[in-house]
Amino acid sequence: MTAPKAANRALPHFFQPRSVAVIGASRDEAAVGHACLKNMISCGYAGKVYAVNPHADEVLGVKCHPSVLDIPDPVDLGLIVVPARFVLSVMQECAQKAIDSVIIISAGFKESGPEGAELERQVAAFGREHGIRIVGPNCLGIIVPAIGLNASFAPSMPAAGQMAIMSQSGALATAVLDWAVDQGFGFSKFISFGNRADVGFSDFLHAWKDDPDTRVILIYMEGVDNGATFIEAARQVSRVKPVVVVKSGGTAAGARAVSSHTGSLAGAESAYEAAFRQTGVIRAHSVEDLFDYAIAFAFQPLPQGEALGIVTNAGGPGIMATDATERAGLRLANLEKATVDCLRTKLPPASNFYNPVDVLGDADADRYGYAASCLISDPNVHAMVAVLTPQAMTQPVECANAVADAAGRQNGKPIFGCFMGGRMMSAGERRLDDRRIPSYPVPERAVSAFAAMVGYKRWLDRPAGQPVTFEVDRDLARQVFAQARQDRRSDLGEVEARQVLTGYGFKVPAGRLAHTSDEALAAAAGIGYPVVLKIASPDILHKSDIGGVRVNLTSPEQVQDAFDLLTLRARRFMPDADIWGCLVQEMVSGGREVILGVSRDPQFGPLLMFGLGGIYVEVLKDVAFRLAPLTRDDAREMITEIRSYPLLAGARGQKAADSGAIVDGLLRLSQLVCDFPEIVEMDINPLSVMDADHGAVAMDARITIAHREGEG
Amino acid sequence: MTAPKAANRALPHFFQPRSVAVIGASRDEAAVGHACLKNMISCGYAGKVYAVNPHADEVLGVKCHPSVLDIPDPVDLGLIVVPARFVLSVMQECAQKAIDSVIIISAGFKESGPEGAELERQVAAFGREHGIRIVGPNCLGIIVPAIGLNASFAPSMPAAGQMAIMSQSGALATAVLDWAVDQGFGFSKFISFGNRADVGFSDFLHAWKDDPDTRVILIYMEGVDNGATFIEAARQVSRVKPVVVVKSGGTAAGARAVSSHTGSLAGAESAYEAAFRQTGVIRAHSVEDLFDYAIAFAFQPLPQGEALGIVTNAGGPGIMATDATERAGLRLANLEKATVDCLRTKLPPASNFYNPVDVLGDADADRYGYAASCLISDPNVHAMVAVLTPQAMTQPVECANAVADAAGRQNGKPIFGCFMGGRMMSAGERRLDDRRIPSYPVPERAVSAFAAMVGYKRWLDRPAGQPVTFEVDRDLARQVFAQARQDRRSDLGEVEARQVLTGYGFKVPAGRLAHTSDEALAAAAGIGYPVVLKIASPDILHKSDIGGVRVNLTSPEQVQDAFDLLTLRARRFMPDADIWGCLVQEMVSGGREVILGVSRDPQFGPLLMFGLGGIYVEVLKDVAFRLAPLTRDDAREMITEIRSYPLLAGARGQKAADSGAIVDGLLRLSQLVCDFPEIVEMDINPLSVMDADHGAVAMDARITIAHREGEG
Repeated sequence: MTAPKAANRALPHFFQPRSVAVIGASRDEAAVGHACLKNMISCGYAGKVYAVNPHADEVLGVKCHPSVLDIPDPVDLGLIVVPARFVLSVMQECAQKAIDSVIIISAGFKESGPEGAELERQVAAFGREHGIRIVGPNCLGIIVPAIGLNASFAPSMPAAGQMAIMSQSGALATAVLDWAVDQGFGFSKFISFGNRADVGFSDFLHAWKDDPDTRVILIYMEGVDNGATFIEAARQVSRVKPVVVVKSGGTAAGARAVSSHTGSLAGAESAYEAAFRQTGVIRAHSVEDLFDYAIAFAFQPLPQGEALGIVTNAGGPGIMATDATERAGLRLANLEKATVDCLRTKLPPASNFYNPVDVLGDADADRYGYAASCLISDPNVHAMVAVLTPQAMTQPVECANAVADAAGRQNGKPIFGCFMGGRMMSAGERRLDDRRIPSYPVPERAVSAFAAMVGYKRWLDRPAGQPVTFEVDRDLARQVFAQARQDRRSDLGEVEARQVLTGYGFKVPAGRLAHTSDEALAAAAGIGYPVVLKIASPDILHKSDIGGVRVNLTSPEQVQDAFDLLTLRARRFMPDADIWGCLVQEMVSGGREVILGVSRDPQFGPLLMFGLGGIYVEVLKDVAFRLAPLTRDDAREMITEIRSYPLLAGARGQKAADSGAIVDGLLRLSQLVCDFPEIVEMDINPLSVMDADHGAVAMDARITIAHREGEG
Repeated sequence: MTAPKAANRALPHFFQPRSVAVIGASRDEAAVGHACLKNMISCGYAGKVYAVNPHADEVLGVKCHPSVLDIPDPVDLGLIVVPARFVLSVMQECAQKAIDSVIIISAGFKESGPEGAELERQVAAFGREHGIRIVGPNCLGIIVPAIGLNASFAPSMPAAGQMAIMSQSGALATAVLDWAVDQGFGFSKFISFGNRADVGFSDFLHAWKDDPDTRVILIYMEGVDNGATFIEAARQVSRVKPVVVVKSGGTAAGARAVSSHTGSLAGAESAYEAAFRQTGVIRAHSVEDLFDYAIAFAFQPLPQGEALGIVTNAGGPGIMATDATERAGLRLANLEKATVDCLRTKLPPASNFYNPVDVLGDADADRYGYAASCLISDPNVHAMVAVLTPQAMTQPVECANAVADAAGRQNGKPIFGCFMGGRMMSAGERRLDDRRIPSYPVPERAVSAFAAMVGYKRWLDRPAGQPVTFEVDRDLARQVFAQARQDRRSDLGEVEARQVLTGYGFKVPAGRLAHTSDEALAAAAGIGYPVVLKIASPDILHKSDIGGVRVNLTSPEQVQDAFDLLTLRARRFMPDADIWGCLVQEMVSGGREVILGVSRDPQFGPLLMFGLGGIYVEVLKDVAFRLAPLTRDDAREMITEIRSYPLLAGARGQKAADSGAIVDGLLRLSQLVCDFPEIVEMDINPLSVMDADHGAVAMDARITIAHREGEG
């Protein structure tokens, strides 16, 4: 009765059903069940369409069956449009009919409150048990223009194209659809998947990975349920084709709005940002950006580098394109002498023969096309923006053809059109569309699309990388956590954190826990002066705040005094605290202080943070985030992407710090938090980093654990 | 023969001429002189139009005169379209004819090379001598739609409206015009002023300040020639109506493109940024932004605060609007209980009654309008974004009316429409336009326009402020500069800079120049130990770099040793240096180090910089710029806008630093560089700032002067 697992993963019956049953086909023209049937029979779908409605003989000329069980032939896809309370019984009939794929359009589930949520759980569980994959409930449906499949109540049918889109919001999907139809954008697949009781982001990503009709995958996302699944899917798929996401609910207020909207939990923005970056997913910051990028990826090859050539018939917009290029961290190509000579032979002397190439306002299509052709042929040029303004001699359509012809003679060099204007340019813009040159109203948006392509290409060029693992003493850490759990403590202070870190190969200062001042003196003698004393208590995590640290103690007398002072002060500060004594530590100096931190994101799990100690983290908030497990490249990027990185690399005559030791520390920390999901928060603060090749020492650390896995 | 100065300033004959002569009216349909005459007679202009062409009897049915001198009646405006070489003689005839305003369309001037530049200088000089104001040369011309005046060769005629625009680029103007006609945007005045031989940015700003037809002034700028004139005009005008600028050529590569384009000198981006900020000019970052802001300013009142209300029929776009609001540093309004109750009475229970207010996808115009009306009436709401997506029940036109009606019942609350979609929404969007509700394709752009309005309103609310001046000893500084000039030195080191600073009321450490070690010992005894010794030589500006500073000297022996070491080392380092001896200085400690700097921008003059000392300036480039003269608010903002400001305000348990002393220092520095235009560069580095109310001490400084004013 259930379809084989592999077939399920490809979700064939959602995209290529041989037959579809509209369950809940309605005679009422205002009803969603009417719109669904109408879409199924009026958009050119060649498969069989059945209508199910026990109260009608026919709707829209289609014979009605009382139930799917009365349909004589097999049904690949059920399109369920009955009221929520009937959905479960309809599902039972679908199971009997061996239907393995359903789209539940009906609303009244999770989005409507606790009862609906319970009903949704039942429906999802039934689907799982009986091998029925579910899109929805509470969704707009699925459209596959190339085969005329419109299994939705969407009011418009888009053209076929090479962009696949999935949307977590039906309303947004409708707006996008209406807009796309207006703009002539085509889709390979168009999905609004509503509450995602079963099929979601990851399933469609996998399904479209090898879909020959899809060149770029677009996502409107409010939040994912399972971060790990999404990451696995996104990482695999974006190696094969670009995935562009517009994610809302990023800011604090936005996140509140998400909660009240779909009940989905919005993870911290930094976790999403890290997830997209680590999986090569391209982030767009509005629906406008999403399509600006989409048409570039759908129509053009990826650039081989970041050097842009600009051809223009007007200086101003050429400058704007130049400004945007630099702001995006890209650069203008330096043209070869041969290119400049080639331009000089045919362009008027007042032209600009250097990049941006200005062919002047009186250029006809021949001159414009010649310049475009010279420019794109230059080996130093990786991509071209063709800017055109409407002057007296301007031939927009012919210029569009010339640009497309020039593009056609090149491999791997994307071309972006920017024909600025209105009625005078519209025919030229349409020609660009026809010739698959993405076109933008202002140069800034063309350059922004180019920047997105460059970013994606760089990600593709980076070796995939694997999480790094070290030989560690996992048992030592396990024992420390077990003891804390036994004591019913969540917060582990320095003494215990030291053991955990030592087990995971971190260098820590030589040190011993002294319960008495005599033990402290003995410890100091063993370690060698000068030493540091720190109060040791599982109840005191912020030692410095209560004056619980004394550094640079150079004599037994100073150690004796410090031990007495610290323990007395701690007892006065917190009479009920469990005071273990003092930690006597080797005095380490000369390092630069950095912080390695961990927090746990509800969707994505352990999120690692890196920053320079003190004000850089606390005041300037100059930090980098990545999700564990880290690859070596991830760790390296965390270090180099903070603004204060030059301080580690050796600014102002200082020696470079041992970045390798920080990378090592981040990777070991990543391994630790992956090994122990009970770690919910952790700081190594500071990690004291010595000059290059001299390592790093974890000076202090604290760990917060959950008593059960996943508990905060 | 010349018009009175005041009338000139208002440029009446450019915008309300009673008669226009097209000088160079051509029979050739492809000629610019033909297009100009055609525009003059076909766009509804009610004044007299004369054609001048010695080789034709009539063109386009207009009788041709051999010269303007043959025109029997007075001519207010000359539209000159003859080849460049004839322009000067045409100007002579215009002068004889007492024409006081001309537009020179003709190209072949500054933009074409040295000869053209010389011709342009002659034309401009002639205009000045004979009281003829000139727009152009090398320009598109002037359009005033309300009176049907199209004194240009632009291929389209825009509608009348309340936006006035001036463009430094004719090509961009043409593109904007074509696009505006397409979008239905109307203009009060439309100017492309080309090479600006005479009339430029400032003239039009003044002319439009009190123009009742103009609500917002738009500028496309590549660079200004006279920064001071622009600043004076912009400051005055933006107090009266918003001025929005899109400025290109900002980045280094962009600036190169400007130079090769119009020969105009692009000033440093930070000077422009400061100029716009200090004059209340609103900066747009693309032509798209420019019009996004323009329609908001043209159609809507300014908001009284930064709290936004959002009404939507779809959750997703509501979240996007929310995200954009927070990213822009604005906030969502907290609705009053009465508003929430008002919403609850009529909206379905599944709606969101809090901001963003979600009326659900099945909302008709009644429900949508009711919610919009409740929301905009809330006293906590300063502005509203109305988001609509095309669902089955959506009534875009009726919703547009409802939003406009709700807006009409409020004062001072701007409304922004965001009807997302294509064909289904276009009638609704047109209705928004008709009802003067600015409309945007995505929520992010609506919020961005709102943010521009909030920024402008804040600027208007700030008292205008006056440059602050102190009682200073200007003669002391004058003597120092005179001496340096006499010695033919450009670089003034610490010894001389100390005198200048002392004259301008800066506190400097007690100190004396010692020519011998005996003098050093006497100085140290007089100042009191500990002291600092610094090598004193006009040839050594970077003292630390050669080991020329010794701090914390606590005994005569140390002073003796340091004096010998520093002078010997300096001589070895630079045998030909003029070594004056050592500066013996009071040791000042406990302050936080900041830098006050000055550079001189070619267009805008002295540009002041502020930042925290050391890495904050050198590595993190965390600095603020303002143009002199500073107001007290300018100086305060410089301090608070740097990212590291919390370090001065008292982060991490530190006391606050004496910000007042920094403000004082910036104001005194501003006065100094305005008093002495020969100062081209200057650093007070560091200014050591004590805790609040304890002042600041200028620890070291250097000054570079030009030998003639303006020389580098």
